[in-house]
Amino acid sequence: MKLGMIGLGKMGYNLVLNLLDHKHEVVANDVNKDAVDDIKNSGAIPAYTIEEVVQKLEAPRTVWLMVPAGEVTGQVIEQLSELLDAGDTILDGGNSNYKETLERAAYLEEKNIHFVDVGTSGGVEGAREGVCLMAGGAEEVLQGNLNEMFTDIAVENGYLHAGEVGSGHFLKMIHNGIEYGMMQAIAEGFDILEKSPFDYDYEQVARVWNNGSVIRSWLMELTENAFSKDEKLDEIKGVANSSGEGKWTVETALDYQAAAPIIALSLMMRYRTLENDTFSGKVVAALRNEFGGHAVVKGD
Amino acid sequence: MKLGMIGLGKMGYNLVLNLLDHKHEVVANDVNKDAVDDIKNSGAIPAYTIEEVVQKLEAPRTVWLMVPAGEVTGQVIEQLSELLDAGDTILDGGNSNYKETLERAAYLEEKNIHFVDVGTSGGVEGAREGVCLMAGGAEEVLQGNLNEMFTDIAVENGYLHAGEVGSGHFLKMIHNGIEYGMMQAIAEGFDILEKSPFDYDYEQVARVWNNGSVIRSWLMELTENAFSKDEKLDEIKGVANSSGEGKWTVETALDYQAAAPIIALSLMMRYRTLENDTFSGKVVAALRNEFGGHAVVKGD
Repeated sequence: MKLGMIGLGKMGYNLVLNLLDHKHEVVANDVNKDAVDDIKNSGAIPAYTIEEVVQKLEAPRTVWLMVPAGEVTGQVIEQLSELLDAGDTILDGGNSNYKETLERAAYLEEKNIHFVDVGTSGGVEGAREGVCLMAGGAEEVLQGNLNEMFTDIAVENGYLHAGEVGSGHFLKMIHNGIEYGMMQAIAEGFDILEKSPFDYDYEQVARVWNNGSVIRSWLMELTENAFSKDEKLDEIKGVANSSGEGKWTVETALDYQAAAPIIALSLMMRYRTLENDTFSGKVVAALRNEFGGHAVVKGD
Repeated sequence: MKLGMIGLGKMGYNLVLNLLDHKHEVVANDVNKDAVDDIKNSGAIPAYTIEEVVQKLEAPRTVWLMVPAGEVTGQVIEQLSELLDAGDTILDGGNSNYKETLERAAYLEEKNIHFVDVGTSGGVEGAREGVCLMAGGAEEVLQGNLNEMFTDIAVENGYLHAGEVGSGHFLKMIHNGIEYGMMQAIAEGFDILEKSPFDYDYEQVARVWNNGSVIRSWLMELTENAFSKDEKLDEIKGVANSSGEGKWTVETALDYQAAAPIIALSLMMRYRTLENDTFSGKVVAALRNEFGGHAVVKGD
């Protein structure tokens, strides 16, 4: 099929190459003119403005957004909604909050513009070679061209039409929440190994755990890769930021009164990595000193 | 090589079949005579007592234990230590606590009997077709026959000589701790999905997450299998027991002052599944009633 792609960052750029491999026609746009020039050389139809994207597509149009979640996505959707016609479709492949997705779908529905949210996983390599896609949208919008296009660029069995609009971003959010917990569990295991009296080769540990064990997983393969490059991870600091999705998973658990302590605590343990010292640590130290005379460590 | 196997439960029985496939000679024993008769028909040399195991092996002997961890393993090792000669080797493939393993190794060393702890993962299918093995023991004991035998029955790249005695069981323990955290993270994710307004097909969700996503893993494949048999798991209760290894991982984290809240809380969330009601819940309900007059639910 022919479709537009707005946003040629690492994910969008590689998705376009993947689409071109599968004989789809892509009108490609980015705020960065160089990215558009580059992708033109790979066979995409260049568009230097969003207006040009719309002009170079024939109705009913399909435009895929791969731009930062939040404000930018909102702005592009608003701009597009002025340019597109009834019957056109916008796909949002970013990590948008599903609540915003539901609002945007309602807003676009008033203009008879279809909206499909596409949770996207698998990293840059996945985008290029075979991605994991969780789409939310009406059956009549997805059936035919869109389902086929998603299946083309997904890894085998890596595409799901998850349900109504919003269900794709919701599913991707939960996916990331699970990811937080799995990563923290792996991390804690290696932390105990590192504090133990045994002298393990962590690359070899991850390697054996990846072959036949219960915890074999892509994350453990990435662990093996990381230790193969730096056997004690001496070259990096233990500082772990988070994008919004872990936080939204926890907020969602609170909304639905779901007990999800592992995901919540995994997120908070990331927050803890961002602070060298904590105010909570100071408070506990001060209280131990107050009631028990336990020594405090003075600040510099 | 020729070796003895004591314990023909699900794991031991399948390990013997695996060993026989790889042209090893196995003297097989179990307290259950029928299991010994059965394995005899598959080509093992039967032994109906532990004495017979020792008699049917030539020094230096190797005897692999695949019996329940704890008291039974301790008893069999004590019995064997009276029957074996200096230079013989005992392999413990059970989920023994590494502290007991260190004590047993010291006890056997006085008799010049070698001891190797073999953490074993991959379930029954792994035992049969290709297991994941983490061995702890002296290099001079493992080099040659034992390393080759372990490599034969392991899945490709699924064998590691992890370090000195105790390091195999320690590594298996940490593996199980990580497993607890990963499982609880997966479980919480599906719990939030189940409480959400979306109507997901969980088998399909697990399927798409197994293909190209960041959280693809053997545990997610097992999740897919489980939902394929029972789409909402209606037929089972949410009661999850635990063998000792999660608890030992947490105890070890405490011993080494490692911050491992996800593994600890995953274990405690399992304990929570074992109680229909909790005393802590009653205490919180009572206190809310005391200070705020909030209604309590009366017991039957």
